[in-house]
Amino acid sequence: MVWRFSGIPQIHPQIGTEKFPHMNVNGKPTRTIWLHAQNPEIVQIIDQRCLPHSFVVEDLRSVDQVARAIQEMHVRGAGLIGATAGFGMYLAALEAATAPDADASLLRAASLLKGTRPTAVNLAWAVDRMLRAMPASRHPQERISVAKREALMIAEEDAAACQAIGLHGLPLLENLSQLKNGAPLQILTHCNAGWLAFVDFGSATSPIYAAHDRGIPVHVWVDETRPRCQGSKLTAWELGQHGVPHTLIADNTGGHLMQHGQVDLVIVGTDRTTRTGDVANKIGTYLKALAAWDNGIPFYVALPSSSFDWSLRDGLKEIPIEERGSDEVKYAEGLAEGRPVDVLIAPPSSPAANYGFDVTPARLITGFITERGVCRAAETDILGLFPEFRTKK
Amino acid sequence: MVWRFSGIPQIHPQIGTEKFPHMNVNGKPTRTIWLHAQNPEIVQIIDQRCLPHSFVVEDLRSVDQVARAIQEMHVRGAGLIGATAGFGMYLAALEAATAPDADASLLRAASLLKGTRPTAVNLAWAVDRMLRAMPASRHPQERISVAKREALMIAEEDAAACQAIGLHGLPLLENLSQLKNGAPLQILTHCNAGWLAFVDFGSATSPIYAAHDRGIPVHVWVDETRPRCQGSKLTAWELGQHGVPHTLIADNTGGHLMQHGQVDLVIVGTDRTTRTGDVANKIGTYLKALAAWDNGIPFYVALPSSSFDWSLRDGLKEIPIEERGSDEVKYAEGLAEGRPVDVLIAPPSSPAANYGFDVTPARLITGFITERGVCRAAETDILGLFPEFRTKK
Repeated sequence: MVWRFSGIPQIHPQIGTEKFPHMNVNGKPTRTIWLHAQNPEIVQIIDQRCLPHSFVVEDLRSVDQVARAIQEMHVRGAGLIGATAGFGMYLAALEAATAPDADASLLRAASLLKGTRPTAVNLAWAVDRMLRAMPASRHPQERISVAKREALMIAEEDAAACQAIGLHGLPLLENLSQLKNGAPLQILTHCNAGWLAFVDFGSATSPIYAAHDRGIPVHVWVDETRPRCQGSKLTAWELGQHGVPHTLIADNTGGHLMQHGQVDLVIVGTDRTTRTGDVANKIGTYLKALAAWDNGIPFYVALPSSSFDWSLRDGLKEIPIEERGSDEVKYAEGLAEGRPVDVLIAPPSSPAANYGFDVTPARLITGFITERGVCRAAETDILGLFPEFRTKK
Repeated sequence: MVWRFSGIPQIHPQIGTEKFPHMNVNGKPTRTIWLHAQNPEIVQIIDQRCLPHSFVVEDLRSVDQVARAIQEMHVRGAGLIGATAGFGMYLAALEAATAPDADASLLRAASLLKGTRPTAVNLAWAVDRMLRAMPASRHPQERISVAKREALMIAEEDAAACQAIGLHGLPLLENLSQLKNGAPLQILTHCNAGWLAFVDFGSATSPIYAAHDRGIPVHVWVDETRPRCQGSKLTAWELGQHGVPHTLIADNTGGHLMQHGQVDLVIVGTDRTTRTGDVANKIGTYLKALAAWDNGIPFYVALPSSSFDWSLRDGLKEIPIEERGSDEVKYAEGLAEGRPVDVLIAPPSSPAANYGFDVTPARLITGFITERGVCRAAETDILGLFPEFRTKK
């Protein structure tokens, strides 16, 4: 099946009026980050390293703990990294109140947080936004209250943007579904761009949840996403919690499925996107984009505009690609006899390389699904939705 | 770097005169299958499920044991499956000598062995060759001795073909290496088409070993090859044993490396190849071929002619693709605290699909490296090297 992109939908009229059901864990609406109900000086997160085997809530009480949670991937994903960094700067404002030099303390926190993950643009975006919101001249208590409000606002905006992405992506899925004569729409996704990667709803998953909640039959092929297996550990888990039919596959499998007509569209997220439409996303995304292109299958990237890096034009040359430790490749982490175990899956003496992301060039992307609508992966079309960035390079 | 294929080398004049060093394990020349030195009614194999953590030799004393060894992947790989099936038919001849109906016994063995793995063409090829070599009319003892000789010959021919593949591939690597100004030639391979997949030398690895043994600097990017990790468990191990520099990567990584000029060529093996040049190989091969094509990197398939299925013209439509159990995807097997452990890496309730192979269309393949020389992936060129199959459809 060859599908052709046919124009930019308008901003969805229902956004802001229609309510989605929130994402559920064991039937209970849950977000990925929030302030402690009794003590708002504690940030609470889901420690995603424990999923899918156990659901662990972690308290973050300092900037150092926030930095470690981002770096060691207790939290991960474009939007959630940004939201966590926002709350980290709120904790920095609390710490600055008792520091000898408040300004230096804030800047140190900003630098520490920005250095945790090099590829995700939401990180620097959120930290810079927090710094702008709390000028040095402010009274400490006022700065704390401004920082708290701004961090909460970043989180709310992230959830709202993801909800809007779902409403804008929904017509695409509805249209493709009508060609299936009642059979499930087959969607492939890579890594986790689900609600666990944001504050709520997710980016790539948001149109899927929207379709599923409206009774459109969908089935998701979930790439396991080695080496950290965010697909098998996070995406499969959150789709299962929300009741969305899905099947786990090795990362090698998507091309074969596409060759045999078993994928109707691909939707992925992004960690940083240039103004020209090049997409840095989890390593392996580029390979799926090539296969979609070779088989005439639409390939969408869903993103809130906070994932655009308006200063970049050439993704391959300009986006820094994080390299992580080789043990993530040489070991697999999972559950054995009820407890988490790391198993060695390679000769101990063999070296391994671990690049976290790759760049999918705009030419392979059918379109972007954003909080303001859907557009082609081209600068003029992107700026058509986000005209305020026309002059910002 | 864009490399263009420039003609078919002639049959290498050194073949049959030059000796390669054999593949080593702990410095000792080793093959993957042989007859027990004291009791030639026992077939011995390396139980490859135990690699890289331990080197276990297994005795096979019956057709049933051989069938299980193939099906449960104690042995695997195009050539080795064929050679093992050959020895299996030798054990079948031994069993037929005491069976009430020798012919029925042989045919049952043939059928059992052919049913173990649906994709590998060498399997049926070897079993049929064994059946042809031992007509029903023969005296049991004569049949046993003919079967033993034929099985040994299949193994010897496999080793000789792989050795020849090395010599024919060597000039390609030498030529590319000269463009590198002394820097290592960067080769990417997927799965294991090494000596562990054959009787000796390997197919994809044979030119690599030949180059390395001649002092040409090479470095191999080893795809781990989920779900069974034949790359990290077998290819990395055998390259390490032979002293070839290599780096293990997740299957998602090759495209990124190719985009950044870190791969000079790709060499893979095949489990079944059509006369028109379509290649069934380990799932994920197609994705690497797409990335090589997109980046102008030569993509070679190395194979002995026993891996051609001369009856097929359309790989995507005609080659059966094996589906294996979902636990291979949901679990990872490795070593923890010195013992082998399976760890669950997904929600227990999530289903998983496990396709063993995909088909890379001939249009994405730069050339074939065979025991008779190198050729383009096109029927006329393939038949130029193997004219005896011109009329066999």
